[in-house]
Amino acid sequence: MHRVFVNSNSPRPVTIGILGGGQLALMLARTASQLGMRVHVLEPATNCPAQHAVAEFRSGDWSDPAILLEFAKDVDVITLENEFIGAGLLADLEQRGHVVLPSSKTMRLVQDKLVQKETLSRAGIPVVEFESVTSEQDLTRVSATLGFPFVLKRRTFGYDGTGNVTVSSAQELESAVQHLGGYKTGLYAEKWCPFTMELAIMITRSSTGETALYPVVESRQDNHVCSSVLAPADISDEVFNLAREMALRAVDAIEGVGTFGIEFFLLQDNVLLLNEIAPRVHNSGHYTLEACDCSQFENHIRAIRGLPLGNTELRSYAAMVNLLAKSNGSGAPCGIGEALAVPGARIHLYGKLRATPGRKMGHVTALGDSAEEALATATRAANCIHFEN
Amino acid sequence: MHRVFVNSNSPRPVTIGILGGGQLALMLARTASQLGMRVHVLEPATNCPAQHAVAEFRSGDWSDPAILLEFAKDVDVITLENEFIGAGLLADLEQRGHVVLPSSKTMRLVQDKLVQKETLSRAGIPVVEFESVTSEQDLTRVSATLGFPFVLKRRTFGYDGTGNVTVSSAQELESAVQHLGGYKTGLYAEKWCPFTMELAIMITRSSTGETALYPVVESRQDNHVCSSVLAPADISDEVFNLAREMALRAVDAIEGVGTFGIEFFLLQDNVLLLNEIAPRVHNSGHYTLEACDCSQFENHIRAIRGLPLGNTELRSYAAMVNLLAKSNGSGAPCGIGEALAVPGARIHLYGKLRATPGRKMGHVTALGDSAEEALATATRAANCIHFEN
Repeated sequence: MHRVFVNSNSPRPVTIGILGGGQLALMLARTASQLGMRVHVLEPATNCPAQHAVAEFRSGDWSDPAILLEFAKDVDVITLENEFIGAGLLADLEQRGHVVLPSSKTMRLVQDKLVQKETLSRAGIPVVEFESVTSEQDLTRVSATLGFPFVLKRRTFGYDGTGNVTVSSAQELESAVQHLGGYKTGLYAEKWCPFTMELAIMITRSSTGETALYPVVESRQDNHVCSSVLAPADISDEVFNLAREMALRAVDAIEGVGTFGIEFFLLQDNVLLLNEIAPRVHNSGHYTLEACDCSQFENHIRAIRGLPLGNTELRSYAAMVNLLAKSNGSGAPCGIGEALAVPGARIHLYGKLRATPGRKMGHVTALGDSAEEALATATRAANCIHFEN
Repeated sequence: MHRVFVNSNSPRPVTIGILGGGQLALMLARTASQLGMRVHVLEPATNCPAQHAVAEFRSGDWSDPAILLEFAKDVDVITLENEFIGAGLLADLEQRGHVVLPSSKTMRLVQDKLVQKETLSRAGIPVVEFESVTSEQDLTRVSATLGFPFVLKRRTFGYDGTGNVTVSSAQELESAVQHLGGYKTGLYAEKWCPFTMELAIMITRSSTGETALYPVVESRQDNHVCSSVLAPADISDEVFNLAREMALRAVDAIEGVGTFGIEFFLLQDNVLLLNEIAPRVHNSGHYTLEACDCSQFENHIRAIRGLPLGNTELRSYAAMVNLLAKSNGSGAPCGIGEALAVPGARIHLYGKLRATPGRKMGHVTALGDSAEEALATATRAANCIHFEN
């Protein structure tokens, strides 16, 4: 029923294939639709947010080359809403003539966080001190170099604080390695980083080389999960410009095409380190839907189609608060009426059918005369909403 | 594949059923999705704009009570994107316990334009002089009462200038009746109305009785089809307030729930007549997507769910230009890159797979320091776009 109708008089509209069907895919799909494009989604899970708002949803394993290839055949460009699809699989698609953006090369440089750090470091971008860890011998050496505490991390598949362990003493070394799945999983270590603020910037780089930078925002975390974002961050012009310059050099270093979320640690004395690149639209850029002419989602779609990028200026101060589930439940939202009654609050719900503790179920954005005022508005609305047990 | 998965732990999200699958349904669907709701669409045509962006699309004849009932069973509330579904069919659904908003009563008072005029007139709202025409005898009498020229109209199913004939002399009477399908079609006549400006206002009335009024806009027409909209209209405060008051009384008179487009004729000496009610979101309200916190689409969804209505204030001056196809063709848009490069222009494409002369293929909105400046921006971008032959 949802197949694209094609005949000689009716060419199919441009079709975007998204690997991943979460809320990022959903918001990308809405933007693509506004530009007259269609969206297909491939996602292993069923009942994902994008499933019910796209032309075609395929439930399938994206680590299966045959399924990926079949998916690729029906779309004009493949893009990603997460960093979990092996770069090798994407390279296979490219070799068969399919367009994948961001490219397999970009994904290879980003999805292994050790390779990402090496790439950034090589490009002269300041990052936290890091070391590869492949054996007990390495770990002992690294403990001495970095000192306690340090952070032991998985090289791949970590997100929102998963895949990380803070090691405070030599006694904790072995259990940390065990917890992360052993040396074979692929590990590396980072020096403990006593930051004063976490910053983020969304940046879009088009297939034509054009770039568009959104403002630098503050990302506030709760248990390693972003709880709120303030736009712009309350930082000096020096740090603001430095972050933008580092973001530009970072997407250049990875030859990125699309929208990227660049996360930073701000340390004392205005020292700025690039923490991580998310090779996709990002939670810390949701505020752009209301606060900018052209959202991170629209600029992503424009970028991967080689279309001119849109205006990224802030219309006013803004803030975003994530709606995180507190417990297991059906995911049915309560208190929406109360939240919608908060003047200036913009409610976004992802339609998830299952709540689990900490799961992102939606977000609230507000504009204001200051970022803190916007945060207060968004928080007031967010506090009205809870998800059924 | 697109069926809603329901089990005891995963209740289905709120589901909106839209009768009609055009661009209005598409834009309603995007908003509903943002609020975590699902959308089902019933539409006789295939390859309609909303088809590829909703949870479920059913191609079916909405004049068939069985098909309507089957559709109604799977949704929480039924709403409409056009005025072409018989009020009697909607009343049948209501009698079986289904929620239809706007209600069958509202649709009965609106979809027959003679009944609509009588209803408005009875409520004391100024309308152009009109007369029922059921026979040649009527027509002769009406010609004398209204004088030439006057407008002969179909009571139902007219839109964008279809279903209307201007009669300039007694010689044209018979052919006008023939052209409209004869007396049995249901005809009425309106006095010629020498307006100086066409105005429109979007108004939302919730099932709770709450109302929200958007500003009064100017609607510019080309061959009876809206070509552009300027927000707000350049009119006196007196007319502005009068239009808002008449809109409030009109939705009250028809007991409307949802968003309604109210069209006015402004005559010399600030005489204002209500021309027509569109019982749905409306082309003249597309600008609200960019120019207001809460669009006409979001307020419609809120209204039919009894949720508090959102802010309808203008963020700045705005204008909208329709993208009308000039000739028959595939509907593939050209010049999108050039259009997107116009600073401040927001491009909306409906993904239609067939262009016919005058067909609405999309629209462009712009904000500006004046409505005319916004119009110039939107026009500049719109002029870049054409549709393939």
